[in-house]
Amino acid sequence: MATTITKANTKLLSLLLLLATSLTLPNLVSAQTFQRLGACPTLGCIFPPDQTDFLAGQLFDLRLEVHAPVNGTEAGTGAGVGVPDEGFSFCVAKVQEGGGKTGECVDVGKYFKVKGDAGALEKWSFTYYEDLFARDAGTLTGVNVAAKAYRALSLNDPGHYQAKLSYTSGGVKQNTVANWIVREPAKKRKAKNVLFFIGDGMTQPMITASRLIAHKSINGKYQTLMQLDQMEALGLQMTHSIDSFITDSANSATALYTGKKSGVNALGVWVDSSKDVFDDPKVETIAELFRRRTGGPVGIVSTAYIADATPGALCSHTRDRSQSASVVFETLYNATSLTPKYDWPTSCKGPDVLFGGGAEQFIAGAGSYNGTDFYKAFEKEGYQVVYDNTQLKTVDGKKKALGIFSVGNMAKWVDRNVLTENLKGQKNSPTGDGSDALDQPGLKDMTLKAIDVLQKRSAGKGWFMMSEAASIDKMMHAMDYDRALGELLELDDTVRASIEHLEKIGELDNTLIVVTADHGHGFDVFGGADTKYLAAQTTDRKKRGAVGTYRNSGLSGYTVAPDSLPNNQSVVYGAQGPNFPVQWSPRYAYAAGFGASPDHRESYTINEKGPRTPATKGDDGGYVANPAEHTHGFSVSGTIPIDESQGVHSLQDVPVYAKGPGAETFRGVYNSVDIFFKIADALALGKAN
Amino acid sequence: MATTITKANTKLLSLLLLLATSLTLPNLVSAQTFQRLGACPTLGCIFPPDQTDFLAGQLFDLRLEVHAPVNGTEAGTGAGVGVPDEGFSFCVAKVQEGGGKTGECVDVGKYFKVKGDAGALEKWSFTYYEDLFARDAGTLTGVNVAAKAYRALSLNDPGHYQAKLSYTSGGVKQNTVANWIVREPAKKRKAKNVLFFIGDGMTQPMITASRLIAHKSINGKYQTLMQLDQMEALGLQMTHSIDSFITDSANSATALYTGKKSGVNALGVWVDSSKDVFDDPKVETIAELFRRRTGGPVGIVSTAYIADATPGALCSHTRDRSQSASVVFETLYNATSLTPKYDWPTSCKGPDVLFGGGAEQFIAGAGSYNGTDFYKAFEKEGYQVVYDNTQLKTVDGKKKALGIFSVGNMAKWVDRNVLTENLKGQKNSPTGDGSDALDQPGLKDMTLKAIDVLQKRSAGKGWFMMSEAASIDKMMHAMDYDRALGELLELDDTVRASIEHLEKIGELDNTLIVVTADHGHGFDVFGGADTKYLAAQTTDRKKRGAVGTYRNSGLSGYTVAPDSLPNNQSVVYGAQGPNFPVQWSPRYAYAAGFGASPDHRESYTINEKGPRTPATKGDDGGYVANPAEHTHGFSVSGTIPIDESQGVHSLQDVPVYAKGPGAETFRGVYNSVDIFFKIADALALGKAN
Repeated sequence: MATTITKANTKLLSLLLLLATSLTLPNLVSAQTFQRLGACPTLGCIFPPDQTDFLAGQLFDLRLEVHAPVNGTEAGTGAGVGVPDEGFSFCVAKVQEGGGKTGECVDVGKYFKVKGDAGALEKWSFTYYEDLFARDAGTLTGVNVAAKAYRALSLNDPGHYQAKLSYTSGGVKQNTVANWIVREPAKKRKAKNVLFFIGDGMTQPMITASRLIAHKSINGKYQTLMQLDQMEALGLQMTHSIDSFITDSANSATALYTGKKSGVNALGVWVDSSKDVFDDPKVETIAELFRRRTGGPVGIVSTAYIADATPGALCSHTRDRSQSASVVFETLYNATSLTPKYDWPTSCKGPDVLFGGGAEQFIAGAGSYNGTDFYKAFEKEGYQVVYDNTQLKTVDGKKKALGIFSVGNMAKWVDRNVLTENLKGQKNSPTGDGSDALDQPGLKDMTLKAIDVLQKRSAGKGWFMMSEAASIDKMMHAMDYDRALGELLELDDTVRASIEHLEKIGELDNTLIVVTADHGHGFDVFGGADTKYLAAQTTDRKKRGAVGTYRNSGLSGYTVAPDSLPNNQSVVYGAQGPNFPVQWSPRYAYAAGFGASPDHRESYTINEKGPRTPATKGDDGGYVANPAEHTHGFSVSGTIPIDESQGVHSLQDVPVYAKGPGAETFRGVYNSVDIFFKIADALALGKAN
Repeated sequence: MATTITKANTKLLSLLLLLATSLTLPNLVSAQTFQRLGACPTLGCIFPPDQTDFLAGQLFDLRLEVHAPVNGTEAGTGAGVGVPDEGFSFCVAKVQEGGGKTGECVDVGKYFKVKGDAGALEKWSFTYYEDLFARDAGTLTGVNVAAKAYRALSLNDPGHYQAKLSYTSGGVKQNTVANWIVREPAKKRKAKNVLFFIGDGMTQPMITASRLIAHKSINGKYQTLMQLDQMEALGLQMTHSIDSFITDSANSATALYTGKKSGVNALGVWVDSSKDVFDDPKVETIAELFRRRTGGPVGIVSTAYIADATPGALCSHTRDRSQSASVVFETLYNATSLTPKYDWPTSCKGPDVLFGGGAEQFIAGAGSYNGTDFYKAFEKEGYQVVYDNTQLKTVDGKKKALGIFSVGNMAKWVDRNVLTENLKGQKNSPTGDGSDALDQPGLKDMTLKAIDVLQKRSAGKGWFMMSEAASIDKMMHAMDYDRALGELLELDDTVRASIEHLEKIGELDNTLIVVTADHGHGFDVFGGADTKYLAAQTTDRKKRGAVGTYRNSGLSGYTVAPDSLPNNQSVVYGAQGPNFPVQWSPRYAYAAGFGASPDHRESYTINEKGPRTPATKGDDGGYVANPAEHTHGFSVSGTIPIDESQGVHSLQDVPVYAKGPGAETFRGVYNSVDIFFKIADALALGKAN
């Protein structure tokens, strides 16, 4: 942590000598894409950064950094180059409302009454590339850093604050100012329970397509609708990151759960520049707050591996979402146990329900924390542990419940319900015995059981649950649109069944149900494809003639029983119930896609052997169309860097649906971070002085 | 109209002999894409079709057809093949609510008290291809038709109706039943005025992208928002056609204006199978109803040529949107004058305001109706006629106002405001003198002036206006995303300015403002592109490396003044005001696209010489990437038929925003046709018995 980059530093010497000539160049900050450090455009960095909103009483860490670039466009000239000001100061002032005088800027130590070794000076260095040309040339820019951290602070007095970092850079006094807002918290609790659904990567165009394939329409009028179509409140949320306009699931989950924008890959923290992925400034999540304020039970359900970003961000804190073993450790215990030197006196205290995939972090071995058997660790903490849908049915809520149903992500709805042969040969039993996980529950099974467990354990305190349809996004990444829509329809079916179940147990009127996504993923339907004609053509340009646009898009083939289409050459997998397609391989299929993909092949037919792998490594080391897949389709050239094997996330605002007490606040257009505040206010989790 | 196809018919003989062997094949109806006739899955056709909703008192035509296929999968066998039942009957019954007995099915003549020659038997024939294989083989299917029409009917009694067409087919009695709903109309008028904005092809991903390029964000928090983000009510509408899930602007405008789903290319009619494009069954539009019920003034504003589908569908009726001259004729006069044999006793009676492009339908010549000078025709009907923005300012509302500002579609916002050199050399003066239309107003200029004219002419009756940002879609078709977003930002700016102006003249609280789109058009942003790096690479695969996804998408370069980015190599066109980009050519541009396109090239830079032409004709007669465009970009292979030169529409639900009296009814998810009913109810245009 204390490596300082100097011109004499052997490790970087050759680099820096190479760069010496460029130190006198004018300021060439491009900084739009390759940033020194996100949310820190000046050389003084404050986390929580400028424009942060807080729930009154919510815990957060404060991280201060002063940067001194050794070389590159921001380095300046002269003796002080590369030497960060270790004597920086930081103060906080309350801005008076209504044009009154802003209060005195009080030094951080005094303002937060910090004790012990809080705010001890830290020093480190890091390097980065300023742009793609620099990357190609191997031209690193080095930065020396002086920093301090203060842990587990809070602001309890609603209003506008200005926080000021004062430091010297290039011999000149500089100030970096952050504006913070502590929002006035709701005083009255509206909702006893919160059921928070996340359709990972779910967008409106996907919902429209799901409706098309699963709901019958006569002359332009749908005879049934999605459950999502029928919620009380409709909203839209902006999903961008703090330092990039496209986000990932870690950092967007952080926004939804903490009300704070952060950087890509970050779970419940802002991203600082140190090497340690566990020392980044933390912020308290909705689940931690719910535990701390109400003592009520918390549930986490996901079709992903349970340490994945969306489930993981509720009860863990690290800037590196790939620390899966630590995520499980922290979820069971707490952050302070994981990193005792960074005190974090709040936690989920072990969620009452944890259902999903991801046995690799539980089976003793390379994937688990310290190689420990985490099934046993959970049992030791009082959990009932189940491994399949049959066992899940026996869970009665007397104990907390851990259900891990597969190694890795869980099977997809289409494979569990339609193409069931694909479950075989996966060797993904959660027990780790190498057998197949053939008896996996679906999102609906897990969510309904979780409701019962939480209800039983709530003792009148209410409960909080997050339930994630994770593979909408995972299958969109794989460009396996059929499976993605199957996952979305399963989510819709789960929301519908949850409403019915809550009604049955008398909790519907007490429960705020929110359904949203964490980010966009480009997708839309643009027509129909005659898959029979497409397969029969011999050139790519002729195959494209199978696509029907506008009038020739025709009607949905998915809602029509195959026997009424004897000429459709379709494969019949067995009829599904209402709200799902009657068939998945109609002759006339939807044609869909997006403009960001690796090279791939397209035939507009379901991938029958399991989820797609659209691209594989080519001769140049980059990805090319998988030659073994959709061989009867046509080639589509990629548009993204050749080291991307899959589709990528997109910018579009994502929909929000709500029902129940507090639902009306979810109407309109707002920032992703506002979701946290709306839920926290429905539960009255804020606490002003 | 009376050509009957028979086996002895010389024209079709060879075809039918060829097909004779296939007449005994089993029923092979594919019918998902290539339909005999939309909204008519059986051999009996009723227009208004099954599932139609009516406003009480709204006028509509009734068309009945009995089809007798001569050959193909529906032809059957035996002596009666190809002979339609000329003795068919049709009756209407009111279904009693609450399980009561359904009334007697009363014969159409009696039910609607028809007079004269209404319901005279008509006969014709048509042919179609059953699928792409049939098209390739030239295998036409012939159908003989017996038909009747009844004009200008109405249903005034709210409730559920069943209409039954009885006919004989293949010697067997058949019934085709249509369920009709007459909705209970609002009794009280909530809104005095309605200002209805249509962003053609506008989707949420485009709004998100527009916000990104025009509104500054600091650490993930926008400092300003779109006007659309701030409306009172947010909804989503499903845009599909009656007989295809992708729609066009004609048929979607028909849904919005009449509350009736129809087929592609249809303006204010359902599509029948006759050859005459003016005899199709009409339905009364919101503008006709507004005129008939209130006598208040009507305004139509568009940046397209004024006979284009979206403006044209308000005051004209034809199943063929390309009948531009007739559209202008009917808009000025009425349908009965256009086709006296089909009485249609309602019309717009000449809108009080008509502002847009499209001089080719006004200048005497090939493009105008009967070669007439339509500027003069409008003047004769009492209109003031203006040709540029300077003249537009002089319009005072004492007369009705016609403003035609260019030949064809109007110039785009980017070209009018940023790349103004592109206005030169177009020879598109609306006077037809071959000069350039350099002084074109924008959507805002036209809309604000239209408000003043309508207000002046309303005499307390209120007014109705439709204002269309037409080139969002037109530029999306051209894959010119920058110009499309410029048009969207102009729409947002127009909505903002209209609200301010209505406030100023004291009409804001009286005016229902609705902003929506007519259909989707696939588009989303998936990252940033270092355009400098892209241009510097020498292969397509290397150029793709310039695209930054997730974290490397970076921040918006469009909101940053170029002088703060000295290394960005951007072209500076002059700073825009707030709510528009500060620059249009940042080094770090957004990377966007969609999965439905012709072959094209992509460089993620603005097309400086005017709107894009992404594809041109190639050696095989199909479209290939335009070799003269974006030559520094990389190639992207197409996915749609090679006879498509542009991008195409998409399925996604489109957003609805509303403000003012009645706005609350626009919340939630609904069908496009519901927009008509919501507006009609805000104006209390329905009239029950």
